[in-house]
Amino acid sequence: MSEQLTLKDIYLARQRIAGLALRTPLVRSESLSRRWNCDAWLKLDNLQPTGAFKLRGAANALLGLDPAQRERGVVTMSTGNFGRGLAYAGRRLNIPVTVCISRLVPDNKVAALRASGAEVVIHGDCQDDADCEARRLRDERGLAYLPPFDHPLVIAGQGTCGLEILEEQPEIDMIFAGLSGGGLIAGIGLAAKSINPALEVIGVSMNEGAAMLESLAAGHPLQVAEVSSLADSLGGGIGLDNAWTFAMTQRYMDRGYKVDEVQIARAMVQLLREDKLLVEGAAAVGMAAVEQHRLDLSGRRVAFVISGQNLSTTTFAQACRLAGEPPYADL
Amino acid sequence: MSEQLTLKDIYLARQRIAGLALRTPLVRSESLSRRWNCDAWLKLDNLQPTGAFKLRGAANALLGLDPAQRERGVVTMSTGNFGRGLAYAGRRLNIPVTVCISRLVPDNKVAALRASGAEVVIHGDCQDDADCEARRLRDERGLAYLPPFDHPLVIAGQGTCGLEILEEQPEIDMIFAGLSGGGLIAGIGLAAKSINPALEVIGVSMNEGAAMLESLAAGHPLQVAEVSSLADSLGGGIGLDNAWTFAMTQRYMDRGYKVDEVQIARAMVQLLREDKLLVEGAAAVGMAAVEQHRLDLSGRRVAFVISGQNLSTTTFAQACRLAGEPPYADL
Repeated sequence: MSEQLTLKDIYLARQRIAGLALRTPLVRSESLSRRWNCDAWLKLDNLQPTGAFKLRGAANALLGLDPAQRERGVVTMSTGNFGRGLAYAGRRLNIPVTVCISRLVPDNKVAALRASGAEVVIHGDCQDDADCEARRLRDERGLAYLPPFDHPLVIAGQGTCGLEILEEQPEIDMIFAGLSGGGLIAGIGLAAKSINPALEVIGVSMNEGAAMLESLAAGHPLQVAEVSSLADSLGGGIGLDNAWTFAMTQRYMDRGYKVDEVQIARAMVQLLREDKLLVEGAAAVGMAAVEQHRLDLSGRRVAFVISGQNLSTTTFAQACRLAGEPPYADL
Repeated sequence: MSEQLTLKDIYLARQRIAGLALRTPLVRSESLSRRWNCDAWLKLDNLQPTGAFKLRGAANALLGLDPAQRERGVVTMSTGNFGRGLAYAGRRLNIPVTVCISRLVPDNKVAALRASGAEVVIHGDCQDDADCEARRLRDERGLAYLPPFDHPLVIAGQGTCGLEILEEQPEIDMIFAGLSGGGLIAGIGLAAKSINPALEVIGVSMNEGAAMLESLAAGHPLQVAEVSSLADSLGGGIGLDNAWTFAMTQRYMDRGYKVDEVQIARAMVQLLREDKLLVEGAAAVGMAAVEQHRLDLSGRRVAFVISGQNLSTTTFAQACRLAGEPPYADL
């Protein structure tokens, strides 16, 4: 790995992760294209075996370990989808995986992690607490520590999502993706801008706890309080010692937006109603941003990264109430 | 086209329709695999641009027309999804498409057909009436008549779905698909048995109006009354003058099952709850058959063809009521 990532690292990642992560389809959304007078495409990373794009980076990071590290195993901290991706890939590659999570992670994600064969350690009330515990276990047990986003192999893995979008539709000129620790935006941004520097990369976070957006505004990584959100997968800090994603997001992301819970909820309901996708709030923030900030997409070719689909039915019911949608009869 | 279809016709179809129809993903269903102690895969043809596998055959048939026929245009009869596929492909290939449908076709499908640029003619109370009108327009306007299933190019197009399944997972040993006119089962059966003669092909229809199953039982094509069903896409006769699909279904389908409306409804709710797929009843009949007939899938590698997703929210609400599922709060 060079000191700076290039498109070649993303091609290497794709070669490595083939067979573990899915090459997901990019499908046109008629309803969104009509609604915004544009050409709207959905990159369905919710169809990954673990329900979210995180599997790409997790698989690439595991495949980059040396044989001794593989044998001892790895530890990570995760809100859920990265841990789940790591557990899934670890089981297939026969690498022991320990996942530290905070008490904020929803029950269904904890259950899915355990079911996927990972050792799960629940510690503290925020991602930073869980992360401390992961580093402690690294030292105590000699495990390799794999961070969920701030790692070159993880970023290169997430970048395969952007590469696939442009291979399918080279004329895409805007990509919307959820913005959390910045691994996805960094990877997609690197891929997209390497292929078409004029392409706009747009990151979207929930209103409260948008750690990367606050950090970018301040000019350096900030600690931000975590708040529960429909887009819970986008929660968590970016790390005060951030080494990769802060600088890459600064460089590759054209604009960032924050969105309200109500807008996220409406976008979730709209995605189910029109596009038949039952997805997490994190998967709906791009559409929420277009609506809330009245973005003009007319005539543009726009891709929205849809990830993930690990939500409980209770969470979707909550979104429907928040969106002010009547139950079923009119769902 | 030879007198009998071979796997080569399916490869030719695939080459022709690339770029018009999607190569859809085959994703593993953890919930169904656990439930039935098997390795369950879902072939997501609901993700086709028109929401159903029918686009494959429609595109292949249009691409097989000679230049003079292309210019005059085509006419067909369809319960909706074939017409929609034909309209979509016709618009892209610049071939005028007229679609005759019966009054039984749901409003949302009619609206989608019109939106896709087809001329829609509503005639009579069953598919046979609509078909008579289509043949009349053929003679009156010199249009090419394309039947929705009983045509070699249509069957070869649908067969690409089966070919893709086996390319992704060559060890699949059972395929479940909806059975209506038999185009899908004939195409998939030809592909699957050509690659692995031991693979079992299973067709599933709704209880009432299962024209192909009744015809197979009688040993010749029968006229069967149409009844409204959650799996409305599977309705309609197979034609008393059936030339292709009756014989091919006889040859390639190992077993056929009928399923109740309640079982279809439960499978629809299950697919949304566990696999996050909001799909038509026709897409859920395979799972319904496994439940209703208590099929033993343990240790098997099973693919279910999921198609389509052109349903109204009212229809899904109706399925929930029929399945006895409480509204939202618990969905």
